[in-house]
Amino acid sequence: MQITVDLSRLLNELEKLASFSDAPAPAVTRVVFSAQDLAARAYLRELFSEAALEWRTDAVGNTFARWTGADPKLAAVGTGSHTDAVPHAGRYDGTVGVLGGLEAIRALQRGGFRPRRSIELLVFTSEEPTLFGIGCLGSRLLSATLSPESARQLKDRGGKSLEEILRQAGMNGSLENVPLAKDYYQAFVELHIEQGPLLERKEIPIGIVTAIAAPATLRVKIEGAGGHAGGMLMPDRHDAFLAAAEIALAVESAAKDTKSIDSVATTGVCNVFPGAVNSVPSRTVLEIDVRDTDLARRDGMLSAIRSACEAVVAKRQVRVEIELINADAPAQASPLITEALAVSCEELGVGSMRMVSRAYHDSLFISRIAPTGMVFIPCRNGYSHRPDEYASPENIDRGVQVLAHTLARLAQ
Amino acid sequence: MQITVDLSRLLNELEKLASFSDAPAPAVTRVVFSAQDLAARAYLRELFSEAALEWRTDAVGNTFARWTGADPKLAAVGTGSHTDAVPHAGRYDGTVGVLGGLEAIRALQRGGFRPRRSIELLVFTSEEPTLFGIGCLGSRLLSATLSPESARQLKDRGGKSLEEILRQAGMNGSLENVPLAKDYYQAFVELHIEQGPLLERKEIPIGIVTAIAAPATLRVKIEGAGGHAGGMLMPDRHDAFLAAAEIALAVESAAKDTKSIDSVATTGVCNVFPGAVNSVPSRTVLEIDVRDTDLARRDGMLSAIRSACEAVVAKRQVRVEIELINADAPAQASPLITEALAVSCEELGVGSMRMVSRAYHDSLFISRIAPTGMVFIPCRNGYSHRPDEYASPENIDRGVQVLAHTLARLAQ
Repeated sequence: MQITVDLSRLLNELEKLASFSDAPAPAVTRVVFSAQDLAARAYLRELFSEAALEWRTDAVGNTFARWTGADPKLAAVGTGSHTDAVPHAGRYDGTVGVLGGLEAIRALQRGGFRPRRSIELLVFTSEEPTLFGIGCLGSRLLSATLSPESARQLKDRGGKSLEEILRQAGMNGSLENVPLAKDYYQAFVELHIEQGPLLERKEIPIGIVTAIAAPATLRVKIEGAGGHAGGMLMPDRHDAFLAAAEIALAVESAAKDTKSIDSVATTGVCNVFPGAVNSVPSRTVLEIDVRDTDLARRDGMLSAIRSACEAVVAKRQVRVEIELINADAPAQASPLITEALAVSCEELGVGSMRMVSRAYHDSLFISRIAPTGMVFIPCRNGYSHRPDEYASPENIDRGVQVLAHTLARLAQ
Repeated sequence: MQITVDLSRLLNELEKLASFSDAPAPAVTRVVFSAQDLAARAYLRELFSEAALEWRTDAVGNTFARWTGADPKLAAVGTGSHTDAVPHAGRYDGTVGVLGGLEAIRALQRGGFRPRRSIELLVFTSEEPTLFGIGCLGSRLLSATLSPESARQLKDRGGKSLEEILRQAGMNGSLENVPLAKDYYQAFVELHIEQGPLLERKEIPIGIVTAIAAPATLRVKIEGAGGHAGGMLMPDRHDAFLAAAEIALAVESAAKDTKSIDSVATTGVCNVFPGAVNSVPSRTVLEIDVRDTDLARRDGMLSAIRSACEAVVAKRQVRVEIELINADAPAQASPLITEALAVSCEELGVGSMRMVSRAYHDSLFISRIAPTGMVFIPCRNGYSHRPDEYASPENIDRGVQVLAHTLARLAQ
């Protein structure tokens, strides 16, 4: 079978998708359920209809576009990713897996392939945690990792509930209907940019993911004592921001101290209250992201951060409240998928390496209900979540080819 | 002369003024030129008219309410303070000097006093730096410390210019007309809460200010490298927020290292960009407030902070840009005023102590064009710029009595 990727069409679609953004190009800001996100969804549905895919949207906005196979009763083969983007991000994170997955299906259609199993493209809702503070909302619900009751407790920063936001976005289904049956997918493969530097450094075009790192998220609220920046004497202070500064530095140390390259920890959010130049900060909120491919090491970092918080409490006489937003287990890729990907790479004569994913993905949760794997392509300097995120056309092309061959093999 | 303060009226007016707020009580948020600030100004003008004071407003919104003396050609005696409030502040900062100054005038009127010099109540615009990043906007212009050209360069955080904001607030005069002549005031006395704990700790009801600390403000912009919190390896990071955390801790050390109780340094603003839990911070902006009663020591702290920034640049390979927003010289109170205040305290049988002001005030700048002094009353725990800021009715009463006697003496 001859599979030819229509690369210029795919690049145009990536460019068009990037234009749905609340930040000026090249930055992309497309927070889930924003007007730009809803417009991007409408654009994708048009593309799905053009490709003669039947699409449906579930109660949380996950969108399924299906190419019905010769034997529609068989469990489907899935592929897909997300299209929401954190503030001031780039255009390839997630979107390569969605539009690349679509192009893989179109390439198979053009090549005259007729799948036995249905092939389904899945666009996950809110892979990014921007709105609700929790990542992979869609796939957590699909995999029953998050219950509908727990989802109904979620609120955005303004205090608006998930259900209210869904209603405003025109989604009226029942969250109870979101979880998928365990035999819904025969296999699931996600194409994604690496978001790290290894493939580029080793000059290998394809990464076959064997495991996805275990992410955990902490929210740390520090309550000190505010006051006038001139009148409040230094010995009398319980500065919430200085306590936060020490905790953030301890977060960095927790990751460095494991001596493992697979340990990462980041304080990406720091909100200082009241936030006036002449007021001593009374309150500060940090959001901390901790990941490792090894669960014990990840949990060791969490313990180190908790100890550091206790030390800061004792030193500065502030109150610290630590909320564990999520602490997920790492996932192993299914050998069914890693093997299928390896065979595709061999057939195509494309170099590949096995590697772990330090970033989490919806595949982390889909792996709980279906044999799941991921295929990575390099991105320049390993940059992601920034406007200069970049994947070359050649690498995108190779990634879509490997995906298309693998979907064909799994759906036969 | 018998001077009786109408305390319940004054307390009611303080409560009413506190209700012009963008934060729920007991917090007060009244940023200059906000709708609440403009409404508060209208309320004050009503009170001025009721007290038969002639009022005018200059091009930047400084408001002057005059009780014309028997010899109106003589230089006036001034009193006053500000009514803008930083976010989530209390109800006494500035307002005690404005409404207390008004009550002092009314008490003198009721007591049958007839001043030779006019007595003028001044309400300064934007003592707080919330909107423009620079404090004492009104008094800087009145004293020609800030030129109209420089004022026209000021922008709020949204990029709106001062002139645009003034136009929207209905103020259409020329900034060139704001500076006062050097002989405009014969004397100027500002009543204020201490915003520090000393009077309360020593159980002395009145502070006679001999000097005002020299404030300086820095804006530090840190540019690092953003990226994905999972994919970006720890050794590859140039995290702008961690650099900021180290700088903030160095700001604290700079103040503590002087070993002087008069040295204070605060990082009250920290804005992290992009501010997503799963993005490594690429950019962070700090705003830093540094004060001392001793200019050399203050400048020593600034040098220490600059050195710390250089060390962080070398360690983390980030770029740091330091902007000196203001660096004012300390002011000495005029012996004319401190003596008049001391005599008033003696006459009234009220205990007093001489002290320095660690907070800055509009008097810092008015002292450049007139003999100036300040009178402090205690505030609970020294708290200010927070919702539980509190001055007792008895202390407010004493402060207004001392002010009224002093204004009478100076205006005779």
